[in-house]
Amino acid sequence: MHDHSDMPGHLARRFQQIAVAVFHAEATAAGFDLTPVQYVALAVLRHHPGIDQATLAGLIAYDRTTIGGVIDRLVQKGLLARAASPRDRRAHMLHLTEAGLATLAGIQPAVETAQRHMVAGLEPAEVTELIRLFRKAIAAHEQGHALMKPAP
Amino acid sequence: MHDHSDMPGHLARRFQQIAVAVFHAEATAAGFDLTPVQYVALAVLRHHPGIDQATLAGLIAYDRTTIGGVIDRLVQKGLLARAASPRDRRAHMLHLTEAGLATLAGIQPAVETAQRHMVAGLEPAEVTELIRLFRKAIAAHEQGHALMKPAP
Repeated sequence: MHDHSDMPGHLARRFQQIAVAVFHAEATAAGFDLTPVQYVALAVLRHHPGIDQATLAGLIAYDRTTIGGVIDRLVQKGLLARAASPRDRRAHMLHLTEAGLATLAGIQPAVETAQRHMVAGLEPAEVTELIRLFRKAIAAHEQGHALMKPAP
Repeated sequence: MHDHSDMPGHLARRFQQIAVAVFHAEATAAGFDLTPVQYVALAVLRHHPGIDQATLAGLIAYDRTTIGGVIDRLVQKGLLARAASPRDRRAHMLHLTEAGLATLAGIQPAVETAQRHMVAGLEPAEVTELIRLFRKAIAAHEQGHALMKPAP
Protein backbone atom coordinates (compact mmCIF):
# COMPACT_ATOMS: atom_id res chain seq x y z
CA MET A 1 0.00 0.00 0.00
CA HIS A 2 2.25 2.75 -1.23
CA ASP A 3 -0.22 4.91 -3.11
CA HIS A 4 -3.17 6.70 -1.55
CA SER A 5 -5.25 5.72 -4.59
CA ASP A 6 -5.20 2.11 -3.31
CA MET A 7 -6.30 3.03 0.19
CA PRO A 8 -9.87 2.14 1.14
CA GLY A 9 -10.10 5.32 3.21
CA HIS A 10 -9.11 7.60 0.35
CA LEU A 11 -11.35 5.78 -2.13
CA ALA A 12 -14.27 5.91 0.32
CA ARG A 13 -13.87 9.69 0.58
CA ARG A 14 -13.79 10.08 -3.22
CA PHE A 15 -16.81 7.88 -3.72
CA GLN A 16 -18.70 9.71 -0.97
CA GLN A 17 -17.89 13.06 -2.64
CA ILE A 18 -19.28 11.76 -5.92
CA ALA A 19 -22.37 10.37 -4.19
CA VAL A 20 -23.09 13.76 -2.61
CA ALA A 21 -22.46 15.63 -5.88
CA VAL A 22 -24.75 13.28 -7.82
CA PHE A 23 -27.48 13.54 -5.18
CA HIS A 24 -27.22 17.33 -5.19
CA ALA A 25 -27.37 17.47 -9.00
CA GLU A 26 -30.42 15.20 -9.28
CA ALA A 27 -32.30 16.82 -6.39
CA THR A 28 -31.64 20.31 -7.73
CA ALA A 29 -32.67 19.33 -11.27
CA ALA A 30 -35.95 18.02 -9.84
CA GLY A 31 -36.50 21.33 -8.02
CA PHE A 32 -35.69 20.18 -4.48
CA ASP A 33 -33.27 21.72 -2.01
CA LEU A 34 -32.39 18.81 0.25
CA THR A 35 -29.06 17.31 1.26
CA PRO A 36 -28.61 13.52 1.41
CA VAL A 37 -28.74 13.58 5.21
CA GLN A 38 -31.90 15.73 5.23
CA TYR A 39 -33.49 13.28 2.81
CA VAL A 40 -32.58 10.24 4.93
CA ALA A 41 -33.88 11.99 8.06
CA LEU A 42 -37.26 12.57 6.36
CA ALA A 43 -37.35 8.99 5.03
CA VAL A 44 -36.64 7.51 8.45
CA LEU A 45 -39.20 9.77 10.18
CA ARG A 46 -41.89 8.62 7.79
CA HIS A 47 -41.39 5.07 9.05
CA HIS A 48 -40.75 6.07 12.68
CA PRO A 49 -43.02 9.05 13.41
CA GLY A 50 -42.68 10.56 16.86
CA ILE A 51 -39.12 9.52 17.63
CA ASP A 52 -36.83 12.05 19.26
CA GLN A 53 -33.63 13.62 18.00
CA ALA A 54 -31.26 11.17 19.69
CA THR A 55 -33.14 8.17 18.33
CA LEU A 56 -33.12 9.66 14.84
CA ALA A 57 -29.37 10.31 15.12
CA GLY A 58 -28.87 6.65 16.03
CA LEU A 59 -31.06 5.34 13.21
CA ILE A 60 -29.26 7.33 10.51
CA ALA A 61 -25.87 7.00 12.21
CA TYR A 62 -25.40 10.72 12.35
CA ASP A 63 -23.50 12.35 15.12
CA ARG A 64 -25.59 13.89 17.88
CA THR A 65 -23.88 17.23 17.89
CA THR A 66 -24.80 18.03 14.27
CA ILE A 67 -28.18 16.29 13.94
CA GLY A 68 -29.69 19.33 15.68
CA GLY A 69 -28.72 21.56 12.76
CA VAL A 70 -30.20 19.10 10.26
CA ILE A 71 -33.50 19.09 12.17
CA ASP A 72 -33.51 22.88 12.58
CA ARG A 73 -33.20 23.34 8.82
CA LEU A 74 -35.98 20.84 8.10
CA VAL A 75 -38.23 22.62 10.62
CA GLN A 76 -37.39 26.01 9.04
CA LYS A 77 -38.33 24.60 5.65
CA GLY A 78 -41.67 23.52 7.11
CA LEU A 79 -40.99 19.83 6.40
CA LEU A 80 -40.73 18.71 10.00
CA ALA A 81 -42.53 19.63 13.24
CA ARG A 82 -41.45 19.21 16.82
CA ALA A 83 -43.96 18.31 19.53
CA ALA A 84 -43.35 18.17 23.27
CA SER A 85 -42.84 14.67 24.58
CA PRO A 86 -45.26 13.64 27.34
CA ARG A 87 -42.49 11.68 29.05
CA ASP A 88 -39.47 13.95 28.87
CA ARG A 89 -39.79 17.72 28.76
CA ARG A 90 -36.37 18.09 27.16
CA ALA A 91 -37.12 15.63 24.34
CA HIS A 92 -39.20 16.56 21.32
CA MET A 93 -41.11 14.12 19.19
CA LEU A 94 -40.45 14.66 15.51
CA HIS A 95 -43.09 14.33 12.82
CA LEU A 96 -43.21 15.02 9.11
CA THR A 97 -45.59 17.81 8.11
CA GLU A 98 -47.86 17.50 5.09
CA ALA A 99 -45.22 19.44 3.16
CA GLY A 100 -42.59 17.00 4.40
CA LEU A 101 -44.58 14.03 3.17
CA ALA A 102 -45.14 15.72 -0.21
CA THR A 103 -41.44 16.57 -0.52
CA LEU A 104 -40.44 13.01 0.32
CA ALA A 105 -42.80 11.60 -2.31
CA GLY A 106 -41.79 14.23 -4.87
CA ILE A 107 -38.05 13.79 -4.49
CA GLN A 108 -38.15 9.97 -4.58
CA PRO A 109 -37.58 9.56 -8.36
CA ALA A 110 -34.59 11.93 -8.21
CA VAL A 111 -33.14 9.99 -5.27
CA GLU A 112 -33.47 6.71 -7.12
CA THR A 113 -31.90 8.22 -10.23
CA ALA A 114 -29.03 9.51 -8.09
CA GLN A 115 -28.47 6.09 -6.52
CA ARG A 116 -28.20 4.54 -9.99
CA HIS A 117 -26.09 7.40 -11.33
CA MET A 118 -23.45 7.24 -8.59
CA VAL A 119 -22.68 3.62 -9.54
CA ALA A 120 -23.25 4.09 -13.28
CA GLY A 121 -19.76 2.73 -14.03
CA LEU A 122 -20.59 -0.66 -12.52
CA GLU A 123 -22.46 -3.66 -13.89
CA PRO A 124 -25.68 -4.54 -12.01
CA ALA A 125 -24.00 -7.52 -10.32
CA GLU A 126 -21.15 -5.25 -9.24
CA VAL A 127 -23.60 -2.80 -7.67
CA THR A 128 -25.12 -5.66 -5.71
CA GLU A 129 -21.65 -6.74 -4.61
CA LEU A 130 -20.64 -3.19 -3.61
CA ILE A 131 -23.77 -2.90 -1.45
CA ARG A 132 -23.04 -6.29 0.13
CA LEU A 133 -19.41 -5.35 0.89
CA PHE A 134 -20.44 -1.97 2.34
CA ARG A 135 -23.00 -3.64 4.60
CA LYS A 136 -20.59 -6.35 5.72
CA ALA A 137 -17.77 -3.90 6.51
CA ILE A 138 -20.16 -1.54 8.33
CA ALA A 139 -21.81 -4.37 10.29
CA ALA A 140 -18.43 -5.58 11.55
CA HIS A 141 -17.81 -2.15 13.06
CA GLU A 142 -21.29 -1.71 14.47
CA GLN A 143 -21.28 -5.13 16.12
CA GLY A 144 -17.66 -5.28 17.10
CA HIS A 145 -16.81 -2.31 19.22
CA ALA A 146 -17.21 1.31 20.10
CA LEU A 147 -16.05 2.57 16.71
CA MET A 148 -19.66 2.67 15.57
CA LYS A 149 -19.87 6.18 16.89
CA PRO A 150 -19.41 8.71 14.09
CA ALA A 151 -16.15 10.56 13.79
CA PRO A 152 -15.87 13.93 15.55
CA MET B 1 -34.96 0.39 -3.22
CA HIS B 2 -37.34 1.13 -0.35
CA ASP B 3 -34.91 1.27 2.54
CA HIS B 4 -32.09 3.76 2.91
CA SER B 5 -29.89 0.95 4.22
CA ASP B 6 -29.80 -0.46 0.66
CA MET B 7 -28.81 2.84 -0.93
CA PRO B 8 -25.23 3.13 -2.12
CA GLY B 9 -25.22 6.80 -1.11
CA HIS B 10 -26.24 6.11 2.47
CA LEU B 11 -23.86 3.16 2.80
CA ALA B 12 -21.01 5.24 1.37
CA ARG B 13 -21.62 7.90 4.01
CA ARG B 14 -21.64 5.28 6.79
CA PHE B 15 -18.47 3.62 5.54
CA GLN B 16 -16.76 6.98 5.17
CA GLN B 17 -17.70 7.88 8.76
CA ILE B 18 -16.16 4.63 9.98
CA ALA B 19 -13.05 5.19 7.86
CA VAL B 20 -12.53 8.65 9.39
CA ALA B 21 -13.19 7.37 12.93
CA VAL B 22 -10.74 4.50 12.49
CA PHE B 23 -8.07 6.79 11.02
CA HIS B 24 -8.54 9.25 13.87
CA ALA B 25 -8.30 6.49 16.49
CA GLU B 26 -5.13 4.96 15.03
CA ALA B 27 -3.41 8.29 14.40
CA THR B 28 -4.21 9.53 17.90
CA ALA B 29 -3.06 6.28 19.50
CA ALA B 30 0.25 6.68 17.66
CA GLY B 31 0.59 10.24 18.96
CA PHE B 32 -0.26 12.11 15.74
CA ASP B 33 -2.81 14.85 15.24
CA LEU B 34 -3.58 14.59 11.52
CA THR B 35 -6.87 14.20 9.65
CA PRO B 36 -7.12 11.80 6.69
CA VAL B 37 -7.08 14.71 4.25
CA GLN B 38 -4.05 16.30 5.93
CA TYR B 39 -2.26 12.95 5.70
CA VAL B 40 -3.07 12.51 2.01
CA ALA B 41 -1.94 16.08 1.30
CA LEU B 42 1.44 15.37 2.91
CA ALA B 43 1.77 12.01 1.12
CA VAL B 44 1.05 13.60 -2.28
CA LEU B 45 3.43 16.50 -1.65
CA ARG B 46 6.24 14.10 -0.88
CA HIS B 47 5.90 12.70 -4.40
CA HIS B 48 5.12 16.05 -6.05
CA PRO B 49 7.20 18.67 -4.22
CA GLY B 50 6.69 22.24 -5.36
CA ILE B 51 3.17 21.95 -6.73
CA ASP B 52 0.71 24.71 -5.95
CA GLN B 53 -2.53 24.62 -4.01
CA ALA B 54 -4.82 24.17 -7.03
CA THR B 55 -2.73 21.27 -8.35
CA LEU B 56 -2.76 19.63 -4.93
CA ALA B 57 -6.55 20.05 -4.72
CA GLY B 58 -6.87 18.30 -8.08
CA LEU B 59 -4.54 15.44 -7.15
CA ILE B 60 -6.36 14.63 -3.94
CA ALA B 61 -9.79 15.51 -5.38
CA TYR B 62 -10.45 18.03 -2.67
CA ASP B 63 -12.50 21.08 -3.31
CA ARG B 64 -10.58 24.27 -3.94
CA THR B 65 -12.44 26.38 -1.45
CA THR B 66 -11.48 24.24 1.54
CA ILE B 67 -8.00 23.03 0.55
CA GLY B 68 -6.70 26.41 1.72
CA GLY B 69 -7.72 25.62 5.29
CA VAL B 70 -6.04 22.21 5.12
CA ILE B 71 -2.80 23.82 3.94
CA ASP B 72 -3.01 26.60 6.52
CA ARG B 73 -3.24 24.06 9.34
CA LEU B 74 -0.32 22.05 7.99
CA VAL B 75 1.77 25.22 7.73
CA GLN B 76 0.79 26.21 11.30
CA LYS B 77 1.89 22.78 12.48
CA GLY B 78 5.24 23.34 10.79
CA LEU B 79 4.78 20.37 8.46
CA LEU B 80 4.49 22.33 5.24
CA ALA B 81 6.16 25.45 3.85
CA ARG B 82 5.00 27.83 1.16
CA ALA B 83 7.49 29.41 -1.25
CA ALA B 84 6.77 32.11 -3.81
CA SER B 85 6.44 30.78 -7.33
CA PRO B 86 8.81 32.30 -9.89
CA ARG B 87 6.10 32.17 -12.54
CA ASP B 88 2.97 33.36 -10.78
CA ARG B 89 3.08 35.77 -7.86
CA ARG B 90 -0.31 34.58 -6.60
CA ALA B 91 0.67 30.91 -6.58
CA HIS B 92 2.76 29.35 -3.86
CA MET B 93 4.88 26.26 -4.25
CA LEU B 94 4.28 23.80 -1.44
CA HIS B 95 7.00 21.70 0.14
CA LEU B 96 7.19 19.37 3.11
CA THR B 97 9.44 20.56 5.91
CA GLU B 98 11.80 18.20 7.73
CA ALA B 99 9.12 17.87 10.41
CA GLY B 100 6.58 17.09 7.69
CA LEU B 101 8.76 14.30 6.31
CA ALA B 102 9.30 12.90 9.80
CA THR B 103 5.57 13.02 10.56
CA LEU B 104 4.74 11.27 7.31
CA ALA B 105 7.24 8.50 8.03
CA GLY B 106 6.16 8.23 11.66
CA ILE B 107 2.43 8.02 11.00
CA GLN B 108 2.72 5.47 8.19
CA PRO B 109 2.29 2.33 10.36
CA ALA B 110 -0.84 3.83 11.96
CA VAL B 111 -2.25 4.71 8.53
CA GLU B 112 -1.71 1.17 7.29
CA THR B 113 -3.27 -0.27 10.44
CA ALA B 114 -6.25 2.03 9.95
CA GLN B 115 -6.67 0.94 6.32
CA ARG B 116 -6.79 -2.70 7.43
CA HIS B 117 -9.00 -1.96 10.41
CA MET B 118 -11.70 -0.12 8.42
CA VAL B 119 -12.26 -3.26 6.31
CA ALA B 120 -11.65 -5.74 9.13
CA GLY B 121 -15.03 -7.38 8.54
CA LEU B 122 -14.07 -8.42 5.00
CA GLU B 123 -12.02 -11.33 3.69
CA PRO B 124 -8.82 -10.32 1.86
CA ALA B 125 -10.39 -11.11 -1.54
CA GLU B 126 -13.36 -8.93 -0.61
CA VAL B 127 -11.07 -6.02 0.26
CA THR B 128 -9.46 -6.34 -3.15
CA GLU B 129 -12.89 -6.40 -4.76
CA LEU B 130 -14.10 -3.38 -2.77
CA ILE B 131 -11.05 -1.41 -3.90
CA ARG B 132 -11.64 -2.48 -7.50
CA LEU B 133 -15.32 -1.46 -7.38
CA PHE B 134 -14.50 1.91 -5.77
CA ARG B 135 -11.91 2.63 -8.46
CA LYS B 136 -14.20 1.57 -11.30
CA ALA B 137 -17.16 3.63 -10.03
CA ILE B 138 -14.94 6.67 -9.40
CA ALA B 139 -13.20 6.38 -12.78
CA ALA B 140 -16.54 6.37 -14.60
CA HIS B 141 -17.37 9.73 -13.02
CA GLU B 142 -13.94 11.23 -13.53
CA GLN B 143 -13.82 10.25 -17.18
CA GLY B 144 -17.46 10.69 -18.01
CA HIS B 145 -18.50 14.19 -17.22
CA ALA B 146 -18.33 17.26 -15.06
CA LEU B 147 -19.45 15.44 -11.92
CA MET B 148 -15.83 14.82 -11.06
CA LYS B 149 -15.80 18.12 -9.24
CA PRO B 150 -16.30 17.65 -5.52
CA ALA B 151 -19.65 18.50 -4.00
CA PRO B 152 -20.13 22.02 -2.66
